[in-house]
Amino acid sequence: MPRPIELHAAWVYTGEAHSGLLKDHTLCIDENGKIEALIPTREAARNPGAQQIELGNHLLMPGLINCHGHAAMTLLRGFADDLALTPWLQDHIWPAEGRWVDADFVRDGVNIAMAEMIKTGTTTFSDQYFFPDSTAQAACDAGMRCQVNFPIINVPTQWASEPNEYLSKGLAVRDKFKSSELVSVIFGPHSPYSLEERDIAKIATLANELEMGIQMHVHETKPEVLHAVEINGERPITTLKRLGMLGPHMQCVHMVWLSKDDIRAIADSGSHVIHCPSSNMKLASGACPVSDLLDAGINVAMGTDGAASNNGLNLFAEVRLAALLAKLTTGNPASLNAEQALHMATLGGAKALGLDHETGSLQQGKWADVIAINFDDASMQPLHNPISQVVYAGHGAHVQHSWVAGRQLLNNGKLQTLDESKIIRSAQAWRAKIASNANPTTSAKELA
Amino acid sequence: MPRPIELHAAWVYTGEAHSGLLKDHTLCIDENGKIEALIPTREAARNPGAQQIELGNHLLMPGLINCHGHAAMTLLRGFADDLALTPWLQDHIWPAEGRWVDADFVRDGVNIAMAEMIKTGTTTFSDQYFFPDSTAQAACDAGMRCQVNFPIINVPTQWASEPNEYLSKGLAVRDKFKSSELVSVIFGPHSPYSLEERDIAKIATLANELEMGIQMHVHETKPEVLHAVEINGERPITTLKRLGMLGPHMQCVHMVWLSKDDIRAIADSGSHVIHCPSSNMKLASGACPVSDLLDAGINVAMGTDGAASNNGLNLFAEVRLAALLAKLTTGNPASLNAEQALHMATLGGAKALGLDHETGSLQQGKWADVIAINFDDASMQPLHNPISQVVYAGHGAHVQHSWVAGRQLLNNGKLQTLDESKIIRSAQAWRAKIASNANPTTSAKELA
Repeated sequence: MPRPIELHAAWVYTGEAHSGLLKDHTLCIDENGKIEALIPTREAARNPGAQQIELGNHLLMPGLINCHGHAAMTLLRGFADDLALTPWLQDHIWPAEGRWVDADFVRDGVNIAMAEMIKTGTTTFSDQYFFPDSTAQAACDAGMRCQVNFPIINVPTQWASEPNEYLSKGLAVRDKFKSSELVSVIFGPHSPYSLEERDIAKIATLANELEMGIQMHVHETKPEVLHAVEINGERPITTLKRLGMLGPHMQCVHMVWLSKDDIRAIADSGSHVIHCPSSNMKLASGACPVSDLLDAGINVAMGTDGAASNNGLNLFAEVRLAALLAKLTTGNPASLNAEQALHMATLGGAKALGLDHETGSLQQGKWADVIAINFDDASMQPLHNPISQVVYAGHGAHVQHSWVAGRQLLNNGKLQTLDESKIIRSAQAWRAKIASNANPTTSAKELA
Repeated sequence: MPRPIELHAAWVYTGEAHSGLLKDHTLCIDENGKIEALIPTREAARNPGAQQIELGNHLLMPGLINCHGHAAMTLLRGFADDLALTPWLQDHIWPAEGRWVDADFVRDGVNIAMAEMIKTGTTTFSDQYFFPDSTAQAACDAGMRCQVNFPIINVPTQWASEPNEYLSKGLAVRDKFKSSELVSVIFGPHSPYSLEERDIAKIATLANELEMGIQMHVHETKPEVLHAVEINGERPITTLKRLGMLGPHMQCVHMVWLSKDDIRAIADSGSHVIHCPSSNMKLASGACPVSDLLDAGINVAMGTDGAASNNGLNLFAEVRLAALLAKLTTGNPASLNAEQALHMATLGGAKALGLDHETGSLQQGKWADVIAINFDDASMQPLHNPISQVVYAGHGAHVQHSWVAGRQLLNNGKLQTLDESKIIRSAQAWRAKIASNANPTTSAKELA
């Protein structure tokens, strides 16, 4: 039975708009891993049965929520850079995936991804990739919170051959993890252009009946939107609206090329947007108009996308970039201030994933998904404004500790539930294997 | 007398275009701190009198060169964020500077800045700020290479009252440090709009006679360019050209708003451009058209600008952002590839500062200004492409060791010539002082 924990910190950012930044507070975590109280440290009774952790000059805050990625693709980090989208996908990424992706690839890739995410402050991630049961199991084993959006695409892969098989396999993953407190499973239809209308309509119906979320790449590139108009006579958002996909259960990823009508349709439906600025910039897709979306009342969350296009999974870099990019695109330096940007990576993320009753802020009754950021570093001094410091000066390596549901995943910068040396050896073995043109059946171990 | 050093590393990026990336090489540094040889490790004789350092799975590369900043302003990091340029400067930054800037403020601010720069891989920085002798002395004491561009501005400050006084005080700093192997001193006329034409012409003449460089903020914002056209009937670049300021000794910082003619004038003159993407984005100034500049044959270097507008001095973040921003602005994901971006922060930077005969690449006879980056981190694995990894996945905290002129400034992530705890205490004292509205004569120590 785990012990309760009391975390005493100089600074606390709860993530709730009304509570702001608190000085010298104590977060009490019960033996179930839930937040019991957040009180001024001078009033804390200090339960002798609880693990007492003095954090000193740290900021305690909700763990970051990475709402979009393809964790297993971390094995292809830096594999093909500085290329246009089509040769990048067709000549490099897809052939490598076609050759190598299996359950082991996914498990090993997800472990590398989680190691990086935990070390840079992420406690919850949402993921769309083949063999989602491998991803879900790896997350459970490491103790990370994970929302799997199982892929559905009109292309055969090693995992499934056509949309109905993707659906049935995905729903089996949902059944397998339905009692998990860490994993939730939703639909991950790839994109409007990679599925038939009848399959999109079917997913909309199923999501409604089963009360499940949906995550989908939508309006990522300009050619994608123009092509849809040419083929279907309407923009993808209009198609999704017509087919019943939009709504508070809908997570639209990227959303770079948007008209006023597109924005209104998203806002009216209560759909969420997931912003992935690094990936959109690196692939030259464009910039999601985050300020316009927020002005329209849309909830916007943050994602790193996969390491094949990012090439990191460091949400601190993403939050900073989101704030800078919003200022550049609006021409207004007051756009997307530090607190708005941080909200997108915490409670905004939890809302997008439909998990805001469970995580995303330090509120009584939620899971204790929490990170501690060290201000005792030259790059974080002087400390005129802790929120600005985290957003504009933080680079992820300042994360010192993290807990998910009260279980410590990072202690003084060291992973507690994953073996980083083993993960690095596994990455090296996969690199050798992928570079060698070896037979895919050669195990990574043989090449280590 | 220092001992020679032999650094054995798995990977070496020399920074010279022709030599590319080397595997398993040894860098030999002589007792004067200069590079003696770079040879395959298997051929290295291993001088028994030399300090032997086995770097393992590290990349050895030239230290980064931060070509533009205001290091002392690190004391104002996060002091006023998310504001438009005019209220930011007029209501926050200038009043704080007016109240607090003196030789102690500069020394203490520069020490914080150097601590962050060294920990994130910078070995040379260029700086424009008041009390430049404090900056130069702090750099010498810490062992960093520094190019001071002493300010000249048509505004009285604590350091000087009018352009002639700025000039004479600045030239005295040059005389004071003329025998220094670490410090070079050049002119830092603030900007075309903050000086009279006669003063700009005078600086152009002096720079020519004394064979000194010039660094200047040029074409940072659109209103600045439009206003100049309205007042002078010509764009600032045209004015500078007419006054004889352009040439290979000229470092133009920012260069956001440029016409084709502006670009041609810069290219024809051999002037250099210093790109500061974070600062330009955060203040919503715009994006320097780096790809167009490179296409025109212009040498482009990188700068962080000051921590009041960045808010970090981490050149890794800047290099990554430069590459992403170029792709976004051109719409071409092949723009500014990883190696081009890294060049801008190494040899390109040395060229801009006129120091490429001394530093910027790992070449025999140059100073041993070198850093070692650790690939044994989950976020740097697998390693398909070391240069991509450094540019797109590196976040500065992967820098493990650094040397300037063969003197070790960072060892296993720990500062060797600066006391980080003392620097943090000093930053905390300054924060308290600045926040307290205390009398400026109260020393930081009293409030510590």
